[in-house]
Amino acid sequence: MRESRAANSFLLAMTDRRTLDRELDQLLRESGARVDLVGAREVIRGVLATPSADDENAWLDLIAPDADGKLLESLRALRARIIESAGNDGLATRDPKRLTDLRNELKRRDVDAFLIPKADEHQGEFIARRSERLMWLTGFSGSAGMAVVMRKGKAALFVDGRYTLQAGTEVDGDQFEIHHITETPPHRWLAKNLTAGAKVGFDPWLHTDDQIKRFERAARQAGAITIQLADNPLDAVWVGRPSAPMAPVVAHPAKYCTDTAAQKRRQIGQAIKAQGLDAAVITAPDSIAWLLNIRGGDVGYTPLALGFAILHNNGGVELFMDPRKLAPDVDKHLGESVIVLEPDALMTSLNHLGSRSLKVLVEQSSAPAIIVRTLKAAGAEVVNAPDPCALSKACKGKAERDGMRAAHVRDGAALVRFLAWLDKEAPKGKLTEIQAAEQLAAFRAEVPLYRGPSFATIAGAGAHGAIVHYHADKKSNAKLKKGSLFLLDSGGQYLDGTTDVTRTVAVGQPTADMRDRFTRVLKGHIALARAVFPEGTTGSQLDALARKPLWEAGLDYDHGTGHGVGSYLGVHEGPQRISKHPGTTALQPGMVVSNEPGYYKTGAYGIRIENLVMVQTVKPPKGAERGLLGFDTLTLAPFDRRLIDVKLLSPVEVDWVNAYHATVAKTLAKHLDKATKNWLDKAAKPLPKR
Amino acid sequence: MRESRAANSFLLAMTDRRTLDRELDQLLRESGARVDLVGAREVIRGVLATPSADDENAWLDLIAPDADGKLLESLRALRARIIESAGNDGLATRDPKRLTDLRNELKRRDVDAFLIPKADEHQGEFIARRSERLMWLTGFSGSAGMAVVMRKGKAALFVDGRYTLQAGTEVDGDQFEIHHITETPPHRWLAKNLTAGAKVGFDPWLHTDDQIKRFERAARQAGAITIQLADNPLDAVWVGRPSAPMAPVVAHPAKYCTDTAAQKRRQIGQAIKAQGLDAAVITAPDSIAWLLNIRGGDVGYTPLALGFAILHNNGGVELFMDPRKLAPDVDKHLGESVIVLEPDALMTSLNHLGSRSLKVLVEQSSAPAIIVRTLKAAGAEVVNAPDPCALSKACKGKAERDGMRAAHVRDGAALVRFLAWLDKEAPKGKLTEIQAAEQLAAFRAEVPLYRGPSFATIAGAGAHGAIVHYHADKKSNAKLKKGSLFLLDSGGQYLDGTTDVTRTVAVGQPTADMRDRFTRVLKGHIALARAVFPEGTTGSQLDALARKPLWEAGLDYDHGTGHGVGSYLGVHEGPQRISKHPGTTALQPGMVVSNEPGYYKTGAYGIRIENLVMVQTVKPPKGAERGLLGFDTLTLAPFDRRLIDVKLLSPVEVDWVNAYHATVAKTLAKHLDKATKNWLDKAAKPLPKR
Repeated sequence: MRESRAANSFLLAMTDRRTLDRELDQLLRESGARVDLVGAREVIRGVLATPSADDENAWLDLIAPDADGKLLESLRALRARIIESAGNDGLATRDPKRLTDLRNELKRRDVDAFLIPKADEHQGEFIARRSERLMWLTGFSGSAGMAVVMRKGKAALFVDGRYTLQAGTEVDGDQFEIHHITETPPHRWLAKNLTAGAKVGFDPWLHTDDQIKRFERAARQAGAITIQLADNPLDAVWVGRPSAPMAPVVAHPAKYCTDTAAQKRRQIGQAIKAQGLDAAVITAPDSIAWLLNIRGGDVGYTPLALGFAILHNNGGVELFMDPRKLAPDVDKHLGESVIVLEPDALMTSLNHLGSRSLKVLVEQSSAPAIIVRTLKAAGAEVVNAPDPCALSKACKGKAERDGMRAAHVRDGAALVRFLAWLDKEAPKGKLTEIQAAEQLAAFRAEVPLYRGPSFATIAGAGAHGAIVHYHADKKSNAKLKKGSLFLLDSGGQYLDGTTDVTRTVAVGQPTADMRDRFTRVLKGHIALARAVFPEGTTGSQLDALARKPLWEAGLDYDHGTGHGVGSYLGVHEGPQRISKHPGTTALQPGMVVSNEPGYYKTGAYGIRIENLVMVQTVKPPKGAERGLLGFDTLTLAPFDRRLIDVKLLSPVEVDWVNAYHATVAKTLAKHLDKATKNWLDKAAKPLPKR
Repeated sequence: MRESRAANSFLLAMTDRRTLDRELDQLLRESGARVDLVGAREVIRGVLATPSADDENAWLDLIAPDADGKLLESLRALRARIIESAGNDGLATRDPKRLTDLRNELKRRDVDAFLIPKADEHQGEFIARRSERLMWLTGFSGSAGMAVVMRKGKAALFVDGRYTLQAGTEVDGDQFEIHHITETPPHRWLAKNLTAGAKVGFDPWLHTDDQIKRFERAARQAGAITIQLADNPLDAVWVGRPSAPMAPVVAHPAKYCTDTAAQKRRQIGQAIKAQGLDAAVITAPDSIAWLLNIRGGDVGYTPLALGFAILHNNGGVELFMDPRKLAPDVDKHLGESVIVLEPDALMTSLNHLGSRSLKVLVEQSSAPAIIVRTLKAAGAEVVNAPDPCALSKACKGKAERDGMRAAHVRDGAALVRFLAWLDKEAPKGKLTEIQAAEQLAAFRAEVPLYRGPSFATIAGAGAHGAIVHYHADKKSNAKLKKGSLFLLDSGGQYLDGTTDVTRTVAVGQPTADMRDRFTRVLKGHIALARAVFPEGTTGSQLDALARKPLWEAGLDYDHGTGHGVGSYLGVHEGPQRISKHPGTTALQPGMVVSNEPGYYKTGAYGIRIENLVMVQTVKPPKGAERGLLGFDTLTLAPFDRRLIDVKLLSPVEVDWVNAYHATVAKTLAKHLDKATKNWLDKAAKPLPKR
């Protein structure tokens, strides 16, 4: 009886839904919507797979921007039903059955081992949830790593030194051996565990050609072979895997772009031609966003739209991106020289380039192996060279420079508002890392043109500050204690620019050691900020300037000193960087880089001082024989004066701090409420001369 | 009648010589000499082909060390006859016929183009006269360059920016086009000038494999091919080409060597084994000299013996070197694990390595192409890796460190003697660059253990100082004028060490500009000398410290800041260097490098301040967390105080100069005559504090 009633209610619901569907399909057609019912379902699923799933306008824009009344109501109901019926994507949980399912799938495909990298098709820093295969399988949530699964026998997870502890708590050690990725590289582990004749499967979209070659050599050593799989076996067993993300792709307003997309396409096309090449395959979505002056929201933190592009040397572009993802009027913005094609069409186009024996630029260090191999197999001459957009994207033009400056003023005001609040709240001893981060996010959310954080905030109290890639979660969330340091590294995405700033703040009275270390880090920061150098100088040449004051005390830090920053794009971009590792890209006017030396005392505290700076030409002194460059500091927020030991500063360094603080106070004054302004005036007071 | 008399006298001479020869051969046999008459002739010719041709003992040692009386007299007569009858080697003259002869030879061999690099079989910095093919053919005497000769059509000489002017005056522009080697690289020029089907010949001993590959690609572009020639066609037409040099190879005294050759062979053999390799082909003669604790004199400036070696991973060595070149008892020094083989036997041994399918280390950036190709063709697995001796050679042990220090004391005393002399002579206005260089050489010649200069002295007066690779000749030889600067870069080879030092001296009153520039160069020099840095730091990371004071004035210099220096070996050695170009070799204790920033005002003056420094561990300050390294300055000679603008120095810099000068004065005092000591005390007086 009960069963029959349930069956009845099920049939009734089915009938209801069919009726509703018919009605909605009709409404969509009548209203001239962009998609039919099937399309609407897919768009809603795609938008739900993005970080801004909750943004109601996003999906409406892609379906029926002008929907109202009955149509609007029906679409909302449809979305609610989709959310309701969507399976959990499983990323928040662990399940030992997943490994078994994967092994069964490998058996079905006659594959003996399989590689699961933490990577998407673009070797991107931030990846869509559907690309979180490593996390789904192993539970490991770190930003880098790889698993290798043998069909029979072992499975192993490889992570770097930052993540060995974390992997130990997140991952089931009975299922996965955990190895240090540089001490036991996956390819060497594989070579040891493979038997002769074994087949190692890989997804050719998730590895570069060089990465695969390394595994090929390792396999050969063991008498085994590698096999390029047509689709990913893990995807076949991942129930509830999110759709391809479909955040609306919008035109980036012209006022924030120095050059039009047409100008960029022509310039980069000519540069490709000047290298004797016919076309370039652009695999980096942020390069595509820059080139076409578009922005998206498919992944967290960086406003890019996932896709590939082929730029021909005449400036024409084939853009491989679901056309339904384009917001209204974006096709007009792109113009007729940009042909939007389904993502699947990429293979056809690559084959076409090959059949014409064209010379095609590919940045092999980031392109998926399948692109290189398809081109070569089809007869193209693949020329390995840097992404042709990267350098131009890094050298900001006037609009981007102005935008970055403006964004930093507003971001600075929010940060100062936070610092003033922190100064009041922290001494009470109850504040947690997460509360602090949320308060800062709340202040930033009020800032005009704010679009979200540019990366996951690092809020490290006390010993957590010494963990360079620390992220507070409910379990780790610590209180800011008296006598400790609080390290806060955060940034915002604004329509006119991207910010990234770290301040280290004393809670209560800092120790003499803390002040010594902080002042040394500050001296390094100042040395870099003040540096003048000839055109042609690389960031690698300057790196030591930031470390010298630490070296003199037998101290150092184990991360780079500076990374490039995009303009309402990636908070980490190349090709320039300031690093002790060799680099060959000269610093050039308009490049934005971070200046972020640090010092970390394991188990005790962490210090980092980070401003963004922009490379600019420097007025040459009398008698100068070389064109000189220097840095203009963009970030506007005071350093904690309580942490500065003035005795360790030279007069020139004291002058620099005082001038910087004066600029901060003056520039931000009109953006602050009175109480905050008063606080800032005190915080920015000149340091006493020795 | 006259002809008959001449014929008679010719016959008489022939008879005489035959009698003499018979007598000498008998004497050699009876005395138990090391060689017979044929051998004696070859040894004498070999020694005559070395830079120390005039050293009588050299050749006697190799023929009959105990010769006296009649034997000695006869050998001297033989040597005199050989010198008399030897043709001129033609290097001091030019002759347009040479190019014609070479082209005829190319025709005979059916070769359409031929490459003539400035190189020997070891890609050595200093090469034997018989390897000066480029100079013989073109007249060009610079240290780097290449000619390409088309059999029909053009011939071209390619030189770098240092040498374009010089090439213009030395080379017949009707015979050779002169090109800038980076603007018009030889392979590109070749590709343009080749016709389809042409054959480009090359001597596989004089190019690396990579160099040849570049030409192969260029030839392919033009539809042409490259051909590896069995012997060098230029040698076939070079009448009077010197023999293979045969300077006596001697054991390097044990007291100057921290490790015995047996220890080194075993250590490096084990290192090769640890890389999974069976053997290494050592193509760098200075590595062989270091490995076996031997020294020679086959080329100028560096006391090495030309040859090749194969080091097996068990520590055994095959040394490919004319056995007659070994001085008495060197075979005992080498021991039974070193098998001395004729140079020709190298090919047989390489084939043997291949036939056993061994894994063989070769440093492909310096090995001749024929070695790589022979090994591969024979079945060896060639592994491209750095010369396995290079790093150990660079890190001096106790004996070499002590020796370097001792050599620098004696060298410093000679240099100070010279500086005092210069201070008296230069103001008279008559002194020339060559006279100054010769006087310094004369003072050095009196120093115990001195064996000759470590490179050709650079003595640049006035504007010549701004030519970084200037070498005074009779034509250029300039006087040291009042109000000018004199730049002197020189060094000595001593049995216990190698020196390299540059001082810039004011003649009369320097200008304010000169003092400003000199002081900035000095500040850079001091910054590097005082640097402390963590283990693992490369020279590339430190380079900017030396340039910063110049950068601040919009100035710079276009050469490296420091090169490695051998221990009674090459004055330029790797793998470490201090350079703005990326490097990956960390500085390690015992490494010797130069510290030589400079500034050059074209047409006016040149400044360089060069000391050799040794990397050493630094006592860690309290609280240090990293092992620290720093530099210990070896060179002992005062800077010209008249050129130091104390106002530009910080107190710390003034202290450094004063401490250095005090060390110089104190250390050298007992090695100087009274007048020189008085001069030094004045020259080393403390700078006034600001």
